[in-house]
Amino acid sequence: MSFQIGIGSNIRKSPYFEATVADGVSCFSVYNHMYIPAYFGDPDGEYKRLIEGVAMWDVAAQRQVEIAGPDAMALMQYLTTRDISTTKIGQGRYVPLCDHDGRLINDPVLLKLSEDRFWISIADSDIELWAKAIAAERGLDVEVFEPDVSPMAIQGPKAEDLAADLFGEWVRDVRYFWFRETALNGIPLVLARSGWSKQSGFELYLMDGSRGTDLWEIVKTAGTKYDIGPGAPNDVERVESGLLSYGSDARHTHFPANPFELGLGKLVDFSSGDDFVGRDALLQIKTDGPKRRYTGFVISGVPLEASQNQNPLVQNDKTVGFVAEMVYSPRLRKNIGIGLVNADINNGNDGLHIRLADGVRRVTLANLPFL
Amino acid sequence: MSFQIGIGSNIRKSPYFEATVADGVSCFSVYNHMYIPAYFGDPDGEYKRLIEGVAMWDVAAQRQVEIAGPDAMALMQYLTTRDISTTKIGQGRYVPLCDHDGRLINDPVLLKLSEDRFWISIADSDIELWAKAIAAERGLDVEVFEPDVSPMAIQGPKAEDLAADLFGEWVRDVRYFWFRETALNGIPLVLARSGWSKQSGFELYLMDGSRGTDLWEIVKTAGTKYDIGPGAPNDVERVESGLLSYGSDARHTHFPANPFELGLGKLVDFSSGDDFVGRDALLQIKTDGPKRRYTGFVISGVPLEASQNQNPLVQNDKTVGFVAEMVYSPRLRKNIGIGLVNADINNGNDGLHIRLADGVRRVTLANLPFL
Repeated sequence: MSFQIGIGSNIRKSPYFEATVADGVSCFSVYNHMYIPAYFGDPDGEYKRLIEGVAMWDVAAQRQVEIAGPDAMALMQYLTTRDISTTKIGQGRYVPLCDHDGRLINDPVLLKLSEDRFWISIADSDIELWAKAIAAERGLDVEVFEPDVSPMAIQGPKAEDLAADLFGEWVRDVRYFWFRETALNGIPLVLARSGWSKQSGFELYLMDGSRGTDLWEIVKTAGTKYDIGPGAPNDVERVESGLLSYGSDARHTHFPANPFELGLGKLVDFSSGDDFVGRDALLQIKTDGPKRRYTGFVISGVPLEASQNQNPLVQNDKTVGFVAEMVYSPRLRKNIGIGLVNADINNGNDGLHIRLADGVRRVTLANLPFL
Repeated sequence: MSFQIGIGSNIRKSPYFEATVADGVSCFSVYNHMYIPAYFGDPDGEYKRLIEGVAMWDVAAQRQVEIAGPDAMALMQYLTTRDISTTKIGQGRYVPLCDHDGRLINDPVLLKLSEDRFWISIADSDIELWAKAIAAERGLDVEVFEPDVSPMAIQGPKAEDLAADLFGEWVRDVRYFWFRETALNGIPLVLARSGWSKQSGFELYLMDGSRGTDLWEIVKTAGTKYDIGPGAPNDVERVESGLLSYGSDARHTHFPANPFELGLGKLVDFSSGDDFVGRDALLQIKTDGPKRRYTGFVISGVPLEASQNQNPLVQNDKTVGFVAEMVYSPRLRKNIGIGLVNADINNGNDGLHIRLADGVRRVTLANLPFL
């Protein structure tokens, strides 16, 4: 099945849109009401560049929510399950956000820009509305808004050399998830060691949406010696690496899950005594023990031609979980998946299976990450 | 420019997805994290069916937010600028929602199911998160969730005859925006006289997501005698009719507008004395007078081949507004647009223009609706 995407007025174009079109993007998805490249027509090459070289991604659709003002720290701490009191200026943190029932509603990266100014780099749900409602209803002295910030990622083992060529040798000392405000040919940006892969790399948070094409071309030109090429957050690599995808593996509206189920229990911190959204519900869930757990799957049979999604996992004619996404892993040479399974399934892997268009396939559980 | 859309795990398929694929959908967009058909490959025919016959649309992406419980009415009244105290059970209302600064964040249709139970049928932003945050922070005794409800629309002058064939002659007495719970071959649904066009018609709020294909086939079969065919919310007709498109004409994150600017001032009701989100900000805006107004545009030159979006409107080298969307109207035989213009532009239409890929075009202001 192949369909066109409507290029219309109600979905935004990224600052890198024209550059990615010029570089041959063939397929888009939509994330935070913005077009995001999905493929450039060479899935094997795009995967290989990420694993062995360096890829450049338009991830402007990871929109930022800025929280600024005297109560910014109070709001930020209230919004996340994680204790961020020790977070330093210039440090990023992965911060789960839950609703008042303890269901995950987003899993952004927090960037602490100053004592009273934060960005959260969000997954696909309208956290600006969420944070604004909570700030206003609690009477907090804080501004919540979307700044003009649009990340581009360079990911892969050669990303550090490229970043050093672009910005200087100091980038090699930037620790994982830390960042620095800087500029490139007068283009203001924040450089962070981060990105939605486990292949290492950086994200360039462009701070002037009018300079998207300029930044794209600078990175592309500097990357030529490393055979850089365009790509996008990669389904295969994310399953291999066990990276959670909010919206794919869980979404609060129709297949909710809590952080304990999703393997994020260590990021729910009750010890500080600070209140946070969902605290009571999550304490109860922790006490009772989670009903499901996030896991890897190995799927039998011939290599999957494309990723498959949202397949119920069956044992003894009962649905006992679901495979959120499954792919063929070129490195493992087998079909692997990721998703949730009931904590109380009988006899481990006995008789687990899924039904695909081409028939039934056996499934076994596997630890995450695969690689 | 033509691109594929990624069919992936983080965007939902509608209950009608398979039926629309079988009926030849060629292009999708994404709305409320769900695929929504955009075209079936015959733009002229799809427009003509809507204007002269009857079209069937998968609008399941108009997701519902259900608000239920003892404080449901209190929450609902607090969320909207409109006085809904006189709204009856079985009645729908168009209810603008604003943030605390008075910016529109959605413009749903409210359905009052009982004294303590409402649906809001939302435009493209995560109002479930918004409403849930406000309910929880205010300590209201209410449930906020997404029910299993997926609208399909039948729109066009022959939609009433079709609805009468399907449900009975009583549908002819259903007033505009009113609704009734009913069933079709055992499929539970709410039938409402509504829909995102001015060509009249109904929406069938399917209440069992597993029956999407069944409902689609029943409507299609009954519609054969009226030459029914698949379609989608229609850009051309909506500009002709002056229908606001939230996300296209304004979005709170990056081009916000308030109800007074968007021609919805009559739906902001200060008289009841009830508090609602944005009340103080909106009272100030009303006192000061809105800075912009929502208007139609007529655009000179040869017929536009496709709709164009987000074009700045220029006068004397200054940007004085923007044309959110413009189309060629087959009925008016001219190019028309919709969008916002500064309230203080000089000398009316003098020298207004936009710049398109094929050159500069003169623009004149026009009243909405065009038709």
